[in-house]
Parts: sequence; C-alpha cells; structure tokens
Amino acid sequence: MQIRPATPADLAAMWDIFQSVIVSGDALPFAESLDHVTFRSHWFGTHTAYVAVDDARVLGMYKLGPNYPDRGAHIASATYLVGAAAQGQGIGRAMVEHSIALAEQAGYVAMQFNYVVSSNAPAVKLYEKLGFSIVGTLPKAFRHQQRGLVDVYVMYRPLGESG
Amino acid sequence: MQIRPATPADLAAMWDIFQSVIVSGDALPFAESLDHVTFRSHWFGTHTAYVAVDDARVLGMYKLGPNYPDRGAHIASATYLVGAAAQGQGIGRAMVEHSIALAEQAGYVAMQFNYVVSSNAPAVKLYEKLGFSIVGTLPKAFRHQQRGLVDVYVMYRPLGESG
Repeated sequence: MQIRPATPADLAAMWDIFQSVIVSGDALPFAESLDHVTFRSHWFGTHTAYVAVDDARVLGMYKLGPNYPDRGAHIASATYLVGAAAQGQGIGRAMVEHSIALAEQAGYVAMQFNYVVSSNAPAVKLYEKLGFSIVGTLPKAFRHQQRGLVDVYVMYRPLGESG
Repeated sequence: MQIRPATPADLAAMWDIFQSVIVSGDALPFAESLDHVTFRSHWFGTHTAYVAVDDARVLGMYKLGPNYPDRGAHIASATYLVGAAAQGQGIGRAMVEHSIALAEQAGYVAMQFNYVVSSNAPAVKLYEKLGFSIVGTLPKAFRHQQRGLVDVYVMYRPLGESG
C-alpha cells in the first residue's frame, strides 16, 4: 500500500469511495444528492488530496489543507475516507500518520478536525491514539441515519515543538 | 434602526464594513487580500444576508444559514459585523436577537458560531448574555494582529423547546 498525491485520473475511484461512505449516513454530513462538481471542488480546491493505493486500486483518500484562510491558515484540517471494502486494514491509520508528517513539514502549528461524529467510535479512538484530543462537543449536530441526532466532536493536535 | 434582508444594492456598503473589520486583524480570519467575488459568495451563497440600516445607511450586517449541508443542516450558523463608526450602539445585539428569532422560526435545533476570537471580549460577553455557551476552545487558532496567536471559541445555543 502506497500513499501518493491524487490526480484527476483518480476522481472516478474517489467518487465511488465517497458514495460508499455517504450512503451509510453515519460519518459525513453530505447526502447522496451532493453533486460531482461540488465534490471535485472539495477535494481539488484549497486542500490537497492524497490516495492510498494498492496494485493501482484506490483503497482510501484524504485531503489536507488550511482550516481557515489567512489569520487561521496556520492550523491544518484533514478528512479521511476508506472504501467500504478496505476497512479494518490499517489504511485510515496510515493516512492519518501520513497527513501529520506532511502537516509538520509544512510548518502548521496544529491539526484540527471540525466534524468527528461522536458515534464513529473507531475514528475517535484512532485519532486519540495518534495524539488528538476532543476540544469541543457540538450537541446533536449530526443527524445519524440510524441513531437520530448525535453529538459531533472537534478534535485537535498540536504539531512540531508543541506537539 | 431597521434590520432587513440585504440586496445586491447593499453590496458596496457591505464591502466597506467588511474591510473596516478586516483591517483591524482582531476578529475574522480573512485578510485584506480577500477578493470581492469570494466575499459576495460568502454573503449571498448558502447563507442569507441581512443589514441593519438607519436612514438608508448600512450600519451592520449579518448572515444566517445552515452550518453544514444535509445531515448537519439542522444547526444554524451566523456571522455579524458592525461598521467601525457604528460600534457600541447595540446594533450587534439587535442583529443577534434578530437572527435567533429567525433561526427559531426556521426550525433549527441550535445555533453555532465556529470561530469566535477569544480576545474579542465584547462579542463573547454579548453571545453569553444571549444564551450561547463556549462548547469548544481551539488553542492558538487565530493570528491576532497585535497579540499573536490567541485561542478561538466555538459557541453554541439550543433553540426552540430545548433552548
């Protein structure tokens, strides 16, 4: 498994992974109605996209970039998605570690996740293992497909000397 | 003073207020380099803009809309700006109250502010008076023009029956 920058040639595979995550309704706010143009702007806009590939198959993807412009641009943010068929193989962990290393190299002060669904226990646990803390709890902020309204966490990890 | 929906005819006055807030470097992440097209998309996009006017002069502005799409769209978010010349006249408070009423009417479950600079004491105090609580603290997330890196708060207020 290798992690490399995504290219437009990866878009079809990335869209499939995105759809496989969306349809479960348990991790991301976006609905299946999200159009391809918006999707593309999210993944090839101010953030840089990376893919985890194995034998040229895209297994997972993440994007990394400034969480806010200008006076907030020293904090990185990232989103990670693993295709349904590739779950439980350590791909998420490899991508988070990859992104932390990149963000440190780029000189970011910290990394922040704005929207971690509290019921997504494997993600919360993984982020905590890799040095992230819950710094905010947004009551009932996510409409979970099965559970109804659940809390959302904001998670944060200092980088570099302060990390 | 009256608060009404903004129209494209208000754009020039709104741009001036935005610039007067940006230049102080103490409340918003955006820099003076932010272009007019991006500004317009922020204020006339997924959010609805309102202006506080007096004798046809625009004194303040705010925008209200869903904080996230789809599975996060039941939480409202808002941003308020008061022109430098109109500070301290209760315009901010009137706009926050106006937006809370609108958000309740629209059926939002809660309102959330994603980015309240911790050193902006008048804003934090006003929001707390009007029922908002600090639900998250983002260490060093804002590069304040005078003070350097300061914390940013996430603030939240339940609406309707739970408010």
